[in-house]
Amino acid sequence: MFDKVTLKLNVDPLILGALKEDITSEDVSTNSVMPEPKLGEVELICKQDGIICGLQVFARTFELLDEDVEITFFAKDGDEVKKGQKMAVVRGDIRVLLCGERTALNYLQRMSGIATYTNGVAKLLAGTKTKLLDTRKTSPNNRIFEKYAVRIGGGNNHRYNLTDGVLLKDNHIGAAGGVKQAVTMAKEYAPFVRKIEVEVENLSMVREAVEAGADIIMLDNMSHEDMREAMNIIGGKALVEVSGNVTKENIAKITDLGVDFVSSGALTHSAPIMDISLKNLHPVQE
Amino acid sequence: MFDKVTLKLNVDPLILGALKEDITSEDVSTNSVMPEPKLGEVELICKQDGIICGLQVFARTFELLDEDVEITFFAKDGDEVKKGQKMAVVRGDIRVLLCGERTALNYLQRMSGIATYTNGVAKLLAGTKTKLLDTRKTSPNNRIFEKYAVRIGGGNNHRYNLTDGVLLKDNHIGAAGGVKQAVTMAKEYAPFVRKIEVEVENLSMVREAVEAGADIIMLDNMSHEDMREAMNIIGGKALVEVSGNVTKENIAKITDLGVDFVSSGALTHSAPIMDISLKNLHPVQE
Amino acid sequence: MFDKVTLKLNVDPLILGALKEDITSEDVSTNSVMPEPKLGEVELICKQDGIICGLQVFARTFELLDEDVEITFFAKDGDEVKKGQKMAVVRGDIRVLLCGERTALNYLQRMSGIATYTNGVAKLLAGTKTKLLDTRKTSPNNRIFEKYAVRIGGGNNHRYNLTDGVLLKDNHIGAAGGVKQAVTMAKEYAPFVRKIEVEVENLSMVREAVEAGADIIMLDNMSHEDMREAMNIIGGKALVEVSGNVTKENIAKITDLGVDFVSSGALTHSAPIMDISLKNLHPVQE
Amino acid sequence: MFDKVTLKLNVDPLILGALKEDITSEDVSTNSVMPEPKLGEVELICKQDGIICGLQVFARTFELLDEDVEITFFAKDGDEVKKGQKMAVVRGDIRVLLCGERTALNYLQRMSGIATYTNGVAKLLAGTKTKLLDTRKTSPNNRIFEKYAVRIGGGNNHRYNLTDGVLLKDNHIGAAGGVKQAVTMAKEYAPFVRKIEVEVENLSMVREAVEAGADIIMLDNMSHEDMREAMNIIGGKALVEVSGNVTKENIAKITDLGVDFVSSGALTHSAPIMDISLKNLHPVQE
Amino acid sequence: MFDKVTLKLNVDPLILGALKEDITSEDVSTNSVMPEPKLGEVELICKQDGIICGLQVFARTFELLDEDVEITFFAKDGDEVKKGQKMAVVRGDIRVLLCGERTALNYLQRMSGIATYTNGVAKLLAGTKTKLLDTRKTSPNNRIFEKYAVRIGGGNNHRYNLTDGVLLKDNHIGAAGGVKQAVTMAKEYAPFVRKIEVEVENLSMVREAVEAGADIIMLDNMSHEDMREAMNIIGGKALVEVSGNVTKENIAKITDLGVDFVSSGALTHSAPIMDISLKNLHPVQE
Amino acid sequence: MFDKVTLKLNVDPLILGALKEDITSEDVSTNSVMPEPKLGEVELICKQDGIICGLQVFARTFELLDEDVEITFFAKDGDEVKKGQKMAVVRGDIRVLLCGERTALNYLQRMSGIATYTNGVAKLLAGTKTKLLDTRKTSPNNRIFEKYAVRIGGGNNHRYNLTDGVLLKDNHIGAAGGVKQAVTMAKEYAPFVRKIEVEVENLSMVREAVEAGADIIMLDNMSHEDMREAMNIIGGKALVEVSGNVTKENIAKITDLGVDFVSSGALTHSAPIMDISLKNLHPVQE
Repeated sequence: MFDKVTLKLNVDPLILGALKEDITSEDVSTNSVMPEPKLGEVELICKQDGIICGLQVFARTFELLDEDVEITFFAKDGDEVKKGQKMAVVRGDIRVLLCGERTALNYLQRMSGIATYTNGVAKLLAGTKTKLLDTRKTSPNNRIFEKYAVRIGGGNNHRYNLTDGVLLKDNHIGAAGGVKQAVTMAKEYAPFVRKIEVEVENLSMVREAVEAGADIIMLDNMSHEDMREAMNIIGGKALVEVSGNVTKENIAKITDLGVDFVSSGALTHSAPIMDISLKNLHPVQE
Repeated sequence: MFDKVTLKLNVDPLILGALKEDITSEDVSTNSVMPEPKLGEVELICKQDGIICGLQVFARTFELLDEDVEITFFAKDGDEVKKGQKMAVVRGDIRVLLCGERTALNYLQRMSGIATYTNGVAKLLAGTKTKLLDTRKTSPNNRIFEKYAVRIGGGNNHRYNLTDGVLLKDNHIGAAGGVKQAVTMAKEYAPFVRKIEVEVENLSMVREAVEAGADIIMLDNMSHEDMREAMNIIGGKALVEVSGNVTKENIAKITDLGVDFVSSGALTHSAPIMDISLKNLHPVQE
Repeated sequence: MFDKVTLKLNVDPLILGALKEDITSEDVSTNSVMPEPKLGEVELICKQDGIICGLQVFARTFELLDEDVEITFFAKDGDEVKKGQKMAVVRGDIRVLLCGERTALNYLQRMSGIATYTNGVAKLLAGTKTKLLDTRKTSPNNRIFEKYAVRIGGGNNHRYNLTDGVLLKDNHIGAAGGVKQAVTMAKEYAPFVRKIEVEVENLSMVREAVEAGADIIMLDNMSHEDMREAMNIIGGKALVEVSGNVTKENIAKITDLGVDFVSSGALTHSAPIMDISLKNLHPVQE
Repeated sequence: MFDKVTLKLNVDPLILGALKEDITSEDVSTNSVMPEPKLGEVELICKQDGIICGLQVFARTFELLDEDVEITFFAKDGDEVKKGQKMAVVRGDIRVLLCGERTALNYLQRMSGIATYTNGVAKLLAGTKTKLLDTRKTSPNNRIFEKYAVRIGGGNNHRYNLTDGVLLKDNHIGAAGGVKQAVTMAKEYAPFVRKIEVEVENLSMVREAVEAGADIIMLDNMSHEDMREAMNIIGGKALVEVSGNVTKENIAKITDLGVDFVSSGALTHSAPIMDISLKNLHPVQE
Repeated sequence: MFDKVTLKLNVDPLILGALKEDITSEDVSTNSVMPEPKLGEVELICKQDGIICGLQVFARTFELLDEDVEITFFAKDGDEVKKGQKMAVVRGDIRVLLCGERTALNYLQRMSGIATYTNGVAKLLAGTKTKLLDTRKTSPNNRIFEKYAVRIGGGNNHRYNLTDGVLLKDNHIGAAGGVKQAVTMAKEYAPFVRKIEVEVENLSMVREAVEAGADIIMLDNMSHEDMREAMNIIGGKALVEVSGNVTKENIAKITDLGVDFVSSGALTHSAPIMDISLKNLHPVQE
Repeated sequence: MFDKVTLKLNVDPLILGALKEDITSEDVSTNSVMPEPKLGEVELICKQDGIICGLQVFARTFELLDEDVEITFFAKDGDEVKKGQKMAVVRGDIRVLLCGERTALNYLQRMSGIATYTNGVAKLLAGTKTKLLDTRKTSPNNRIFEKYAVRIGGGNNHRYNLTDGVLLKDNHIGAAGGVKQAVTMAKEYAPFVRKIEVEVENLSMVREAVEAGADIIMLDNMSHEDMREAMNIIGGKALVEVSGNVTKENIAKITDLGVDFVSSGALTHSAPIMDISLKNLHPVQE
């Protein structure tokens, strides 16, 4: 769950933006036929198996529209849920339930889709020392939700953005005049609480990175043999990340190397949504 | 392309939000090694075949960071592009190119993914009178981009949001006391420029909807036979929409009915991204 | 009344803007003499007859300043109220009552002025099939309030803005190359839930518009005879709107034609306010 | 004219708000028929006589949409213009001209209406020492425009809002325990650059106000005789304001008293708009 | 204390900005070790003697993060507090207490520093008719807090900003063509509730200012003898302000002159903070 | 200098906020006497010796008001400047120069004050391996400016905020159940690019921190002897920070220990401003 502070400062403005996207001035359909508030309930039902994620965001969407909406949950983020399972009952003015439905589900379905997909990949790494990382390949204005979903699915987060982590790539190294110079300049410039990560492409760069005292070394596009040799050169003096697709076929090769992390952009950019819907909306007595 | 007005009023604030998400205060890696501006160029390269979409948003991301960035395009939205094809060259301060890269690509990849996926589905409808529609199942705070991508891919847009279209579902009909009452109330309440759409589940509701003068009738979850009978009942007095998955297997059945529209949430919620990258960044002389 | 969702998403930010316009940092007069909160009551009194409109906005203005303000209403939007009538009692910290007074009344007076004026015009159409429409000639940043006031006064709303309704005027027709082409292009481009309205100036354009399948035809600046002929040509195949001043003198002529709608910009741009004030502010015991 | 600073800090955000009110995502009608930019011109024409006001705001509306729009003016704020007079030519992408038209005119018509109405009242005071003042009875979120229009029409501005001027009314006096105490407390509390104004209802309050050193005394609802006596009591020791309707009938009586100011809420809350339109839009060669 | 209205409209947005500055997405340290809410208490302790100021802003910082935080105060703004004194107990979710601590203290320390420093200077003026004024030399985006702190410390406020007070300096006088012209133009242009202040540099300008009817005359950089002569010339016809450093050494000279006001930029731009901290955070039973 | 991206995304909104704070609707004094633009120049002059910092922010303040302002600099951030030195000439509409003066100087004076003060402290550390760090004790909504000024003055930045650095204090350690648990939990939870810093109070905590693999250890309030022993225990396995006042008296003791960093809140919370002013404003020919 997001803590209350994060919710208020960083999550609420995004949910409000999404609600305004869906409601320019009013829900014309609903207001046509329901001029007055009317208490009702609706059920949140899974339509496929998966890892549920985003229940708090789902709830918050309704609460931002009307603080009187009450939600009873029968599941929590990270639970494995099954098709047909009832995860929550939402109670409130039916007009509010209809207004918030689409936005609330759009968040919940996307976050659960990412958690479910991530979980599938993370299981391939189970029992190894290698951890699964996300990337910055997130949907614009949804990073805070998607990085959270990766954690719920069993992954770990790489840097949040360009400000809070240092990753020196070929262009940075070129501009600095070499790996060693780049690492030195970054150590000098960046707040000292940042780890310095360097992306390397061959063994000579690996050696330079180790000598320069890089905290993390990312092996980019190297052959399996070279990666093995790189691990020897590094010898525990830095954390090692490999970037690339993790599939059933190639997973053994990667974990076998004993790298610390493998990162995957697909976790956030290509996970299909999980199908979830609101069902059985009906009026209730107050 | 978005016209200039839409860009300024509705697109720019979203791109700026995405940029702030990625840059809390500065790009520490880049600023560590490049204290001064340095002119450079980078190429925009497809890494898989597809329909390119979002080039203007890609460009705008850089322009919002620095009005001196210049982009030369060799492709335009809607083009079928091939793996390895160079679509653009971006020229500007290398620091700006590095800062905007991820956000610009996140938009371009997602929009192109949707356009490509939509195009595949739209081709299944080619030669029939049935048009392909999107839904409101879009990524939060990305609707304007995703609905545009659907059009570029060959689809049409359903209502933009709850305010600009009327769609009376079972709960609205229940609250109104019947199809006829719901349509009448909506005609009374809604701005008269709205068409009134009603979702129906059986033939008796179809008849009621026609009698009530609904402009559009959505057939929900009806058997193929019932849909055929519904088309007879409607007899051109209203537009007809069918909601549901369009696959190679079921496509013949739907187009065969002669319905006006088929809508699909998957266009926006589950299209995988198209892989695109910036390559060959290098300094140039001014 | 605005529903809770519309209030939170679209109305509150505007009221807050108006309050900030009136209070840059504090109400210096009040804070000079009242350093501490003090409970009081004040009465909302009509100073002329009319249709009251905007009581919820009036209340919301105070509530946004202080959630402890309590308002008891003795009237509701749409009521015919009389000079001297007490419509509400507002109870709360006297300092808050003084701070919010002007902004709350500015909204209430304007909205009631529009409702009252609209009501006067709408009565001229009573007993005919012709409905009264507003236009987009609203006070900047006040459209949501003014369009609501038109409805309360007995009018109907035309499109809310340029996005949610299609109205093809001479320039659009010229650009498209003719009425038929313009309608066809609009049907192709616009979300299919939009009705297509065309503004025509002569009988040949009327015929083209009918043939092109326009949903609404607006007769612009045509002679009474031509309008009558236009009604024959249209023959119920499209809704008909006439734009122009509705006065006691010309009203019979318009309603006589049997057009569906007559629109008037004056409803929102030139209605005088209704005089209303807060009276008898006095301290009360808690 | 607003100076550049005021325009950027305080005017632009309001115009942008008005534009977003009118364009949720795009101008569907225009974009349907004009997929590409096309250079054109349109003329700004008076449809009735009056004092023109708001030409800069009119222009700014288009410039905010597209910095390439060019406007040639043949009149300036404060000019007496005649029905049929061409006041400006606007040149730019026709799509932008159509998008901004309504918002630009809504501002111009309202501001010119206020300037014209104010001018009519101000002329009644010509040749006397009494100046015409506006009030805070402005349209919400339009104060900066309306107070400017009053000045252009020949009026003067009272305080801008609750923060930048002190006006002690009956409730403040009651809370303080008397006129003298209220003035003393205000002098103590308010920034010393504020003048202290007191609203009085009878001669004994007038005397108290003078003794307390009020800078401005507002005579509220007093008989003509009492006002004359009040003028004697004040004897130039404070500025004097009378609040109330100024009509041809009562004007002699007020100016006769030699008061410094007369204020009128009607200037901003009930002036009818001035009719102005954009005509003869046509394409031009670049 | 700020009244509720000022708090909501003008203070809250600034505090929220400061909180977002300190929390981009979450407090990683706290969330690492405390996944669940846990009730706790912490004490607010002075670490040096001084005038406490900003307790409401301190409290509001926590309340904006979590409305369930409860604060019990043992001191109020303006109190002389001693090193070691317990001024408040804050009770709430420990995670919220840790998140808000730094921002709340940053405000409280700065405001108390200014109040303390101002108080020290104000005491030098005790027993004279000369009052102490602040200036516009405040920390950007902190003026509302710093001007309040000056009042709590025993000072008075000069104009809040460029809009709400008129101060004609040498450049204004030059542009107008003389003191008299500048005062006349300002009286004509400015809302009539503004007092007109003129900055003068020599006795001839003093005479001009008096003749022109300036409300306030600021003596800038004049010799003590000239200032004494200026006081004679002015003779009570305007308020007199002297700008400059107030030190123990020069204080007698200034107060001796009998000027109304002395202003000092140092009050807000160079007061050191007062050292205050949160101590003894510990869990409590609910 | 801030790079262009940081300027646009993160600096401009703050400067605009500061400008709005100072200009609610207009600069009344200036607009009273200068109805038309008039080109002029003004000089930026030091009034005391120090390290200049914030010239770009100074310039940006004017540019945001009017893009036509031109500034010629004779100094750059970090330069040691002398009393009386001319650092820049600002050329533009005199009205804009007067409007922006105070806000531009408020930034420049504060930033230069911090750079100057920091520089003084940093010099005490010259020739040692110990670097000077700032803290989060910055002025609310000014952190980006103040942390930059620290760097210009020769200091280094500690974490920017609660999100981008991990610092485990006594309460975190208590909640986790010990130093080791806290470090482990933080490594598990935080993005892996964060270094983990632990605050310790005695030698046994030092040992635990080293064993737990903390990246940075902060010695809090320990005796000099204990700190020396702590350095032995740590033995280069973690970076070491000492928090506390750095004075001429105690400096030898701290640097003698060979710690990596010493942090000081006073750099940002209590540096007096540097006195700088705009002089010799005069009209120039275009």
